[in-house]
Amino acid sequence: MTRVVQKFGGSSVADADSIKRVAKRVLATKQSGKDVCVVISAMGDTTDELMDLALQVSPIPKPRELDMLLTTGERQSAALLAMALADLGVEARSYTGSQAGVITTGKHGDARIIDITPGRVTTALDEGSIVIVAGFQGVAQDTKDITTLGRGASDTTAVALAAAVGADYCEIYTDVDGIFTADPRIVSAASQVPEISYEEMMEMAASGAKVLHLRCVEYARRENVQVHVRSSFSDRPGTWVKDLKDIATTDKDGNPMEQAIISGVAHDRGEAKITIVGVPDKVGEAARIFDAIAASGINIDMIVQNQSRVSTSRTDISFTLPKTEGRNAMQKLNEIQPEVGFEELLFDDQIGKVSIVGVGMKSHPGVTARFFRALADAEVNLDMISTSEIRISVVVDAEAVDRAVRAAHTAFGLDAEGEAVVYAGTGR
Amino acid sequence: MTRVVQKFGGSSVADADSIKRVAKRVLATKQSGKDVCVVISAMGDTTDELMDLALQVSPIPKPRELDMLLTTGERQSAALLAMALADLGVEARSYTGSQAGVITTGKHGDARIIDITPGRVTTALDEGSIVIVAGFQGVAQDTKDITTLGRGASDTTAVALAAAVGADYCEIYTDVDGIFTADPRIVSAASQVPEISYEEMMEMAASGAKVLHLRCVEYARRENVQVHVRSSFSDRPGTWVKDLKDIATTDKDGNPMEQAIISGVAHDRGEAKITIVGVPDKVGEAARIFDAIAASGINIDMIVQNQSRVSTSRTDISFTLPKTEGRNAMQKLNEIQPEVGFEELLFDDQIGKVSIVGVGMKSHPGVTARFFRALADAEVNLDMISTSEIRISVVVDAEAVDRAVRAAHTAFGLDAEGEAVVYAGTGR
Repeated sequence: MTRVVQKFGGSSVADADSIKRVAKRVLATKQSGKDVCVVISAMGDTTDELMDLALQVSPIPKPRELDMLLTTGERQSAALLAMALADLGVEARSYTGSQAGVITTGKHGDARIIDITPGRVTTALDEGSIVIVAGFQGVAQDTKDITTLGRGASDTTAVALAAAVGADYCEIYTDVDGIFTADPRIVSAASQVPEISYEEMMEMAASGAKVLHLRCVEYARRENVQVHVRSSFSDRPGTWVKDLKDIATTDKDGNPMEQAIISGVAHDRGEAKITIVGVPDKVGEAARIFDAIAASGINIDMIVQNQSRVSTSRTDISFTLPKTEGRNAMQKLNEIQPEVGFEELLFDDQIGKVSIVGVGMKSHPGVTARFFRALADAEVNLDMISTSEIRISVVVDAEAVDRAVRAAHTAFGLDAEGEAVVYAGTGR
Repeated sequence: MTRVVQKFGGSSVADADSIKRVAKRVLATKQSGKDVCVVISAMGDTTDELMDLALQVSPIPKPRELDMLLTTGERQSAALLAMALADLGVEARSYTGSQAGVITTGKHGDARIIDITPGRVTTALDEGSIVIVAGFQGVAQDTKDITTLGRGASDTTAVALAAAVGADYCEIYTDVDGIFTADPRIVSAASQVPEISYEEMMEMAASGAKVLHLRCVEYARRENVQVHVRSSFSDRPGTWVKDLKDIATTDKDGNPMEQAIISGVAHDRGEAKITIVGVPDKVGEAARIFDAIAASGINIDMIVQNQSRVSTSRTDISFTLPKTEGRNAMQKLNEIQPEVGFEELLFDDQIGKVSIVGVGMKSHPGVTARFFRALADAEVNLDMISTSEIRISVVVDAEAVDRAVRAAHTAFGLDAEGEAVVYAGTGR
């Protein structure tokens, strides 16, 4: 029997009526002859409200207890969905993350899934019951304490459960129709992508595409779980995230399909740039700086080191990082200033990152040139550049982000009504 | 080291400020050199709000899922109290009922504690941590599903945990100062009882005294846990509930203390009376009626069968039951009417029950006479009468309840400023 894991986010279960609506959708899947396991987030603003309550009690809530508190939100929505399904005449059972066997590391607030021992879930599925699992949570392997997973956690729970119970695929229900070639709020000609590879999706997620979180896609790739991202407000097919070799290269009549070089244009306004001016150009100085940053748990993204100024034997180093971590990083750098002896720190949060992603660029020369030409024509200055095998990212002024995204989207033939750039052969 | 279990109810943890207040009280106990295990209820109206939410989703919420939903309330307050304690610089860990090893029967919504396996709790206490356990809940022995206990459940959790962790005593914090000789809202001269035996407390609870629930006192007696009922809003000593033999009979100078015949006057306005008129006076008819009632899970309290009317060979049977179950019982009786052939059903919810309770009455004749004389002098008509070894209860008109309580309180010398009736010897 086909087995499917369906994940519904907080906006899909904002109130009693939307819980009943989700119940009907789950029932329809069950009635189509599939085993259904649901992963559910907390209702609407519940998590924020619980966090407010915690902050009223304690300025810095103890992480172990914050996890105990916040996990109640998903438990509530799981129980409510099970009630709604029971009213529709179908057997449904809710489980906490711990009951569902979600075993995690012990890092409260940002635990990782180590393993899933889904005995109770599979037994219930085998007995014909719909299973509902509270997302975002697990139980620490060592302490047996309740943990919460990091960002995008309910999606990861769903994919991990899909792997553990041998589901045929995992559906992530969200408030958009799937993955688009660019943010439709910026590019009106953006279109939905029917299929995308794990690798491209990971690059898109890392580049600011919000629909799926990086960790979830990593997990899906590792366990080879096909993920269907779709809207909880319509029945339209969404975007399938799957292995590159499983992606169709011919249409239903067997004719080769047009394969675009790039799958999408992503952007990210959530980063800031720090420039360390006048770093002594000696072996080990950069390492010392980034050791200090890393020790504070700050994730940095792009790094650029300028050529040394010959006159002074000093160099400038710029890097980007999440805006939210800017204050922390500046503080840390100021602390090590006497030791490293750089001249100045500059902070700029009026930047944006624009990235093009596609496996097609591996086999097509000239992609970088075409991208930069399009940006130049749109009068966008490039501040920093970084690349991977299937991604090119640039940092630009915040005000230029929209212009850059549109220019790239057009240049690579992604505009829905425009002329598609056609390449046969490898990838998409 | 002295070990104590402290239980705080919903009114003690209504908001963030009151949680911080409770934290200070718990800390003070810890700082006095005791091991502290706290059992906590859900904040203020949380349980009612969750129930409302459930009813919005489902007219008759599935009991298993209702338990999953409602138990989140206590988990939240437990986590919040642990945070507040951490802020005060003391190690505190919250546990769900399941984590604390509260093993119950599988009857959702009204499970009974079968056993407590307090491994994690005792380990944490031994490590010097304050332990906070979510009350009202456990885990079913067979299914491992989350259960809620019946009424008065957090108190029972506290007493059961006190027994399981070998606590020296159990403190129940509530919104009154302890057990009174009568409801102070009715009898201004009522006074607080410093000590009362398990047996008397059980009779008081069964007779309408709301402070402690019957099941909790039963558990305390069985496990011989001394219970200290006291106010969470003051530091005054409350009432100790303990074994009769442990109750002081001499004052601190060794002189015999005055022992009252009765410990208190209880009343209950929560009952209704059903009279079944004209039941055929044949063997087995009463059994058939009460079998039907019992099969519906309705608890009846007092039963009176009037003398048969010789002319008709029929008899009248009256019984009392919780008002909330009146509709259900009437329906059930109507269903069996054709079978039993009684003449008529009468329903009266304008009644009240007044009880006097005291172990002293075992050894003192004339208690009944004195009680009834006092009621007669107060122009209270008796409708039904029932007795146990240490209790006499009467059913009276609802409007006469206050008068009856006051008359009994005065007649047995309980009025604080009045002349105490002094008896040396057995009991209190």
